Amino acid sequence: MNIDIITIFPDMVGAILGESIMKRAAESGQVNFRVVNLRDFTHDTHRTTDDRPYGGGPGMVMKPEPIFEAVESLRGDNTTVILTTPQGERFSQPAAGELTGHSHLVFICGHYEGVDERVREALVDREFSIGDYVLTNGVLPAAVIADAVVRLIPGVLGGEGATDEESFGEGLLEYPHYTRPPEFRGMKVPEVLSSGDHGRIARWRREQAEARTRERRPDLWERYDRLRRDGRE
Amino acid sequence: MNIDIITIFPDMVGAILGESIMKRAAESGQVNFRVVNLRDFTHDTHRTTDDRPYGGGPGMVMKPEPIFEAVESLRGDNTTVILTTPQGERFSQPAAGELTGHSHLVFICGHYEGVDERVREALVDREFSIGDYVLTNGVLPAAVIADAVVRLIPGVLGGEGATDEESFGEGLLEYPHYTRPPEFRGMKVPEVLSSGDHGRIARWRREQAEARTRERRPDLWERYDRLRRDGRE
Repeated sequence: MNIDIITIFPDMVGAILGESIMKRAAESGQVNFRVVNLRDFTHDTHRTTDDRPYGGGPGMVMKPEPIFEAVESLRGDNTTVILTTPQGERFSQPAAGELTGHSHLVFICGHYEGVDERVREALVDREFSIGDYVLTNGVLPAAVIADAVVRLIPGVLGGEGATDEESFGEGLLEYPHYTRPPEFRGMKVPEVLSSGDHGRIARWRREQAEARTRERRPDLWERYDRLRRDGRE
Repeated sequence: MNIDIITIFPDMVGAILGESIMKRAAESGQVNFRVVNLRDFTHDTHRTTDDRPYGGGPGMVMKPEPIFEAVESLRGDNTTVILTTPQGERFSQPAAGELTGHSHLVFICGHYEGVDERVREALVDREFSIGDYVLTNGVLPAAVIADAVVRLIPGVLGGEGATDEESFGEGLLEYPHYTRPPEFRGMKVPEVLSSGDHGRIARWRREQAEARTRERRPDLWERYDRLRRDGRE
């Protein structure tokens, strides 16, 4: 997979890609990342990427020309152009899975008050919001989406297999995790986890995951419970 | 406000804090950031921060001891300890506003499969999830929350006033933004925005925001519409 990120903060993106799963994905050859400095596609001495909004109001709007030029310099036959914006479709685990089927993702990182509407209309294939909150910086949403997608690409997480039993995969929150020491400041690891009885451990974990989901996320629980009941009929 | 971020990827956090709004908030003296390397609180030669899970299963679990020591070295009288985890409360714009009232936030960035449950039980004040997707890396969620909070601190966004009219503040998505040029590749800026008629511009923007919310986010629209009708009664 090829992932290009267009931004006015190339150093920040570089630092994020240079560590963690992104680094591993690049080193393994599974993903080729390119960080593209939007200012390289400006033609004035100040390398301007934003301007005042038509109709007045606070903040600045990202100009269309450099964004069009940047995307056009990157776009191939199978390119999906993604804009991260609060107006987008809510990003989710199924969307992450779907994006792994694309061979070339280009992220446009918005900044300031917003991006000129003509970018949305004529250039962008998908718009995603990572949640209902306002950020100054489109780099973090692009990095969040890239991280969620990259870790699902076969081979990237290596032999860890950590993608099978995890939050949202089945529609449940995760069960509690414990590691050594067996007792820490008077708090003990639940006895069942040291029992060696795999069936009992699996049942305990499922009960914990169900109880936690019911208590903390009634919205997820309702969906899970409905699917489970449908499956039994 | 003081914001401390505990992580095994201090360079990534440093790069994120070194640009954008975070940099401005630090330079203005409104926020003091500290990046804390979790490995500084280990006592073995390998500086181990994770270990295998009790009960088996894939992935690694973050050990409790270094996290407790790191938090205890930072904690003061008015400290709020935040864990970013898929099991947490859904982070939202109202939560961002609420966190601006705290004077000291300490973020624990989870990695690997999860964090030992005893950290949650005995150390953490608030757990937040930034969305229903799985990430490898707790740094990005901590940075997302910090960005959303910091930009709301009075004085950080300067005279821009960009926090008043924006997504989610009123429960609506934003209206479309346009900047120069007035025509780009045949696409024109809507005439109303150049009319100079502030009343007409305000009405157009509200209609656009309402239409966009209704079409793209029926969940937000339903809530907005109910509040609006209640307000009229």
